[in-house]
Amino acid sequence: MRINADRLNESLATMSLIGATTGGGVTRLALSDEDKAGRDLFRTWCEDAGLTVRFDDFGNMMARRDGTEDIPPVLLGSHLDTIDTGGRFDGVLGVLGALEVIRTLNDHQVSTRHPIEIINWTNEEGSRFQPALLGSGAVTGQFEKAWVHDRQDQQGTRFGGELKRIDYLGPETHRPIAGAAYLELHIEQGPHLEAAGLAVGVVDGIIGDTWINVDIQGQADHAGPTPMRGRHDALVAAAELILGVNRIANEEGDPAVGTVGRLAVRPNVINTVPGSVTMSIDLRSPSGDRLTQMFERVQILAGDVASEHGVTIGMDRYWTMNPTPFALNIVEAVATACRDLGEAEHHLWSGAGHDAKYAANLWPTGMIFVRSQGGISHSEVEYSTPEDIATGTNVLLLTTLQLARDTPYNWPPGPVSDSNHA
Amino acid sequence: MRINADRLNESLATMSLIGATTGGGVTRLALSDEDKAGRDLFRTWCEDAGLTVRFDDFGNMMARRDGTEDIPPVLLGSHLDTIDTGGRFDGVLGVLGALEVIRTLNDHQVSTRHPIEIINWTNEEGSRFQPALLGSGAVTGQFEKAWVHDRQDQQGTRFGGELKRIDYLGPETHRPIAGAAYLELHIEQGPHLEAAGLAVGVVDGIIGDTWINVDIQGQADHAGPTPMRGRHDALVAAAELILGVNRIANEEGDPAVGTVGRLAVRPNVINTVPGSVTMSIDLRSPSGDRLTQMFERVQILAGDVASEHGVTIGMDRYWTMNPTPFALNIVEAVATACRDLGEAEHHLWSGAGHDAKYAANLWPTGMIFVRSQGGISHSEVEYSTPEDIATGTNVLLLTTLQLARDTPYNWPPGPVSDSNHA
Repeated sequence: MRINADRLNESLATMSLIGATTGGGVTRLALSDEDKAGRDLFRTWCEDAGLTVRFDDFGNMMARRDGTEDIPPVLLGSHLDTIDTGGRFDGVLGVLGALEVIRTLNDHQVSTRHPIEIINWTNEEGSRFQPALLGSGAVTGQFEKAWVHDRQDQQGTRFGGELKRIDYLGPETHRPIAGAAYLELHIEQGPHLEAAGLAVGVVDGIIGDTWINVDIQGQADHAGPTPMRGRHDALVAAAELILGVNRIANEEGDPAVGTVGRLAVRPNVINTVPGSVTMSIDLRSPSGDRLTQMFERVQILAGDVASEHGVTIGMDRYWTMNPTPFALNIVEAVATACRDLGEAEHHLWSGAGHDAKYAANLWPTGMIFVRSQGGISHSEVEYSTPEDIATGTNVLLLTTLQLARDTPYNWPPGPVSDSNHA
Repeated sequence: MRINADRLNESLATMSLIGATTGGGVTRLALSDEDKAGRDLFRTWCEDAGLTVRFDDFGNMMARRDGTEDIPPVLLGSHLDTIDTGGRFDGVLGVLGALEVIRTLNDHQVSTRHPIEIINWTNEEGSRFQPALLGSGAVTGQFEKAWVHDRQDQQGTRFGGELKRIDYLGPETHRPIAGAAYLELHIEQGPHLEAAGLAVGVVDGIIGDTWINVDIQGQADHAGPTPMRGRHDALVAAAELILGVNRIANEEGDPAVGTVGRLAVRPNVINTVPGSVTMSIDLRSPSGDRLTQMFERVQILAGDVASEHGVTIGMDRYWTMNPTPFALNIVEAVATACRDLGEAEHHLWSGAGHDAKYAANLWPTGMIFVRSQGGISHSEVEYSTPEDIATGTNVLLLTTLQLARDTPYNWPPGPVSDSNHA
């Protein structure tokens, strides 16, 4: 039994017309008119496939195919929303891939012991309403309902009001709570599979991420008469930290990374020695302990830099998303599906967040990655070949079959919550 | 013969009331109502001292005391304008110090062979109208008259109109052209004299200055899934350059300096590898050749950094102010005055630009520096002690006496013009 690659790619192409951009991408911001059109199309397709569609009080859409027993369903989730001028695959592949799995089971008149539910999570991207992963975070207890409904976009329009406006505000009782397993098919958004020459990857988990605000206070001075020795140049100190973060992440090794993405200089004038710098640091590691050790190395470096340059450096580690290792039985099921398809069993960690991150709080969770051309995503030129997409979706099909047939509902997920240091 | 320190400090205090700020500083922007009030007060004081006041077509004010012969005057110049929330000494010391010299000569009924003219240059600071040094630059041939009159402040108000409005638009024939020598007394705006424990310094010249725009193009990527090895991080490349500029200037040694004062990152987002950086580099040296060598070292470094990080680095050396060594006979006259007063003869270069920079194009020029507390200037807390001010003004008096008595008008100044590489 294999999925129908042509049908899947046609569905992907049709969905990509909703919010299509002139550059070949898609803009389908959460709870926009385009998002509503995408949801409506998906709903029609699901009902055509005999699924029962419901949506909850965060607009998360669930499309259910009953099992032979009334036991917790296998959940297949991802998202239909995109960033502004995003691509045609990020998120939508996981939702329409899951629909193709259902259509294939229908074609072959295969019933499963567990029900199967497709989930389209609301506002995964966080482009319109912040933070990202709002729908999955709300259902899994990360965010308060009132706070979620009160999120505003840049025009001050609220999440709750938009949900009502596009007719996707459902009851709390419709939330997905019981689940035997959660699976998410997604493009890699990175270069590892392409570098390895492989179509699909088995995701072992989502790496941890910690965000730090850095405030460097030096002394603004005239760039002419102030000798090099007497300076307290905040930007020179910042440069030492930027290279230090880079060095520490390189020494830590793949898949750990460290990035200074945001930086502002004051007074930011050509002939004035910089008096202060604020900047961000983003550190990621598959191990929470290693993440903290990376942060501690940056702190020690900051102390040295502060002494050397006569500046003060304040560091605020204000947000941490702990690493999420996926459930071993789900990872093994994905690996088995790869082997059954004759594909290499290539394990990797996700460097980006996904709804699977929060799903893992409630359900045994796993992910399947599909090769991204050039490792590029969040871009109109984001691309995965029809062949790779078919291979990834077949892995999803075979994994779903294993789990919907066999998995007893007895896997106790440990609570994995984000922590706020602030 | 010595100046009257009490009278000078009283005049400085009175002038500082015009445009006084709550923080103890002064805001007297060029051609503002405050500047007009300052000019009017200065004019009254000059006329009270028996001087003939005129102003030219750039608003530069000249106050003349005749000599015993009708030969070119000794010029004593500086400026009464300030930056926004500036200090009480920058510029005004040179103008009122020169007035105190005249008052002292009057007190002692000393006549000089050469006439003496005080000059208050228009718009030295460049805070309201850009560029700085507009009045002295215009008179010495740096800028076209129409272009100067067309300069606009941030509100779009023009230099020429403001000059007329405050009644300081004079005829072209009033420009100061003939001069036996040009002297400028100024606060140091740097820490050297304080570090040396000295009240006054003999300025050997104004160091050269070159401005470079740097454009670094890397590749913006997701900060999570993009491994360290595959990155083209424009900010990491910028950090290498910032530290390189710092190292090159340190190796070059005092008074050479190098500064990255302005920097902008794109897209400037915490979880995105920086795709591009633009930044400035300001290099200064007392030698034009050394300045070019510093720039060449930065260029070589940029080539290495570009290769190492897989980025492109464009460098545009768009403006250079060549170093201005002062006339040896004037420097020697200042040094002699210091020795005659029992002060150490401490030579230093000016790291900042002054009207003396352009004056040196027309006349044999020198400067006297007075110790700045903490090396601080362009600040409301800018301060020099009454004692140091008196010492500096006595150096101006004794130097003026030497030059107004002895200097024949036969020193041919070499043309020292700025060059635009753009």
